Amino acid sequence: MSPPGPRVVVLGGGVVGLACAWSLARRGADVELWDPAPGQGASHAAGGMLAPVSEATYEEEDLLALALASHARWPDFAARLEAGSDISPDLHTEGALHVGMDLDDAREVWRTADLLERYSLPYQRLSSRELRWVAPALAPGARTALLVESDLWVDNRFVVQGLLAASARAGVELVPRRGGLVLEDGRVVGVTSCDHGPPLESRCDTVVLASGVDSGGVPGVAELVHLPLRPVKGQILRMSGARGLLGHTVRGTVHGDHVYLIPRATGELVIGATSEELGDTQVTGRGLLELLRAATTLLPEVGELTLVDAVARLRPGTPDNGPLLGRVGTPGLVVATGHFRHGMLLAPVTADLVTELVLDGTTDVAEAAPFAATRYTPTPLPLSPPTPQ
Amino acid sequence: MSPPGPRVVVLGGGVVGLACAWSLARRGADVELWDPAPGQGASHAAGGMLAPVSEATYEEEDLLALALASHARWPDFAARLEAGSDISPDLHTEGALHVGMDLDDAREVWRTADLLERYSLPYQRLSSRELRWVAPALAPGARTALLVESDLWVDNRFVVQGLLAASARAGVELVPRRGGLVLEDGRVVGVTSCDHGPPLESRCDTVVLASGVDSGGVPGVAELVHLPLRPVKGQILRMSGARGLLGHTVRGTVHGDHVYLIPRATGELVIGATSEELGDTQVTGRGLLELLRAATTLLPEVGELTLVDAVARLRPGTPDNGPLLGRVGTPGLVVATGHFRHGMLLAPVTADLVTELVLDGTTDVAEAAPFAATRYTPTPLPLSPPTPQ
Repeated sequence: MSPPGPRVVVLGGGVVGLACAWSLARRGADVELWDPAPGQGASHAAGGMLAPVSEATYEEEDLLALALASHARWPDFAARLEAGSDISPDLHTEGALHVGMDLDDAREVWRTADLLERYSLPYQRLSSRELRWVAPALAPGARTALLVESDLWVDNRFVVQGLLAASARAGVELVPRRGGLVLEDGRVVGVTSCDHGPPLESRCDTVVLASGVDSGGVPGVAELVHLPLRPVKGQILRMSGARGLLGHTVRGTVHGDHVYLIPRATGELVIGATSEELGDTQVTGRGLLELLRAATTLLPEVGELTLVDAVARLRPGTPDNGPLLGRVGTPGLVVATGHFRHGMLLAPVTADLVTELVLDGTTDVAEAAPFAATRYTPTPLPLSPPTPQ
Repeated sequence: MSPPGPRVVVLGGGVVGLACAWSLARRGADVELWDPAPGQGASHAAGGMLAPVSEATYEEEDLLALALASHARWPDFAARLEAGSDISPDLHTEGALHVGMDLDDAREVWRTADLLERYSLPYQRLSSRELRWVAPALAPGARTALLVESDLWVDNRFVVQGLLAASARAGVELVPRRGGLVLEDGRVVGVTSCDHGPPLESRCDTVVLASGVDSGGVPGVAELVHLPLRPVKGQILRMSGARGLLGHTVRGTVHGDHVYLIPRATGELVIGATSEELGDTQVTGRGLLELLRAATTLLPEVGELTLVDAVARLRPGTPDNGPLLGRVGTPGLVVATGHFRHGMLLAPVTADLVTELVLDGTTDVAEAAPFAATRYTPTPLPLSPPTPQ
């Protein structure tokens, strides 16, 4: 028998926290995952697009490299997830269509094409006729399209369900509580409950902080590291009755508005998502109206689909749109948060990074280096000359 | 002690069936009300506007007379309902604004004014300045408005809850079953269960048929009377956060689309309603989009309100838009259905009519005469010469 692995507590049960917990447990760690409602945060509302290229923007080359590294890991991650949970994440490989409606929208689509070329990333320009062939349900007025075949997509809710099941099978213990850090002698040594239930404390070798937009507010964190997270609200709809309507995900630019349409194996269509600098999780008239207006313009049949649900959640935004990853100055804490709109895409590489840092003390994930959790923490200036030893 | 009253079974627990059952029980009848889900049909989705004038159209003078008769009974009905249930139906008397956005919309509003004048029904034309004063939250572009002060409104869900409570207190027994008619010797003598539960039969002196759009399909009915009911689907939204936004109901014509906005004492705003010749109760992309587009154009703040629910229900439409009321050729049956978009408004007069017919054998409600339940039932032609007696 191997000696018992290190004890790890993961704070936060979104896709990132769950993927870390599962990975750590598979490599022998003794893992607790603390979350009062696992899978009900931003991961619950995600679209599930795994699209490093489509998400790339100018000046985010480091983020693109990290996204490509995670994208490359997804097929294997999905296969292991299904094997470990008997729940398929429904990984699709047909790719994404970028579609523009009017001439201004077309210009935006071509800017994306220029960007893809700059990074030598593959795509195809489609003529109107080819677009009609590939996606006959789209509005005839849709004038411009790219096909990015390397984009993948999954069903976010199946991913979360699969991670919950696989984690449990791998021995992860779920603790439905909110936790704060416990510090002793300059190191993090565990977590303690900070909600209304009976007191509970758990000692461990490492705490993995993966609480998404709430990470900065976890008791004890602010004293160790500055996590400049802000909530970016996303509203997203699910409609039913769309079986066979689309064979790809569609990223539409519709008279300046953006919308994505993601078909599900269940016959549902996911329509997302607003991006609002707000901290509430209410579904608003404007959110519904804007999503439905853009979606029906792009895909008229959306008008005939049936509303299943409309939800809003908060993405953990950061100043440079990149996540906050890795160790901080204080031993015993590893940070894995700030994934913004990329939590689903970046989960595999984040889980690998965190697992290596916790178990090996170092990591092979070079692409994560620019995203040090400490990059926004000011270096303290000495207030008085150092005392002679 | 007075002798026990007649036994009555009411089929259907919408606002009309509930009002009939409550009224009959108060006058001493021994009443059962059969409905597997009382209050969950069209009454659940109603806006609650009590607006005989606003609902009037040319060529519907008989319906207008019936609506005015019921409108006159509403204040007393509401007071008795509150006294009998301790639930206020939240009757409002501030009136309705008819508002048009563009010039074509204005023409439609003026046609309504002409109609009101033709019937000597009171209203006021408001200047833009007066409209701004009366309803400052409406879009500045709203150019034309009438104020119909006599229009009332209630909270439909409080009405239904009140009727359920008042009926129970008055002795109405609720049977959560679907029933069909039992005929013996050429008369209706009771109802029998026609759903999946254990068999159940109830004998009675009179059955009141108030099953809304399902009335024609109640077993045994089609052989007695032809009820040409068709489903007219209505989708309706409820948003929260609207406290103080409107002091009247608003009936808007917005670039040719119609929308009404009804403030609730709870701070909710009801946005209604589509009118679709469809038989399903699904909330569709188009329904949501059209209601929200018209509502936000008329009242921009709707964009900031929070979605509470979106439901669809079926109104029982008839060829002449009037209800189907009264006895049929076969004794033991009284019909009270086909109220289309007017169930809430017409409930008091319908309850009075039905109560008088059941208990007194005749009625003082003269306005109901044009709406005989038998008016669409063809008179059978003798197939052979009458046999000599």
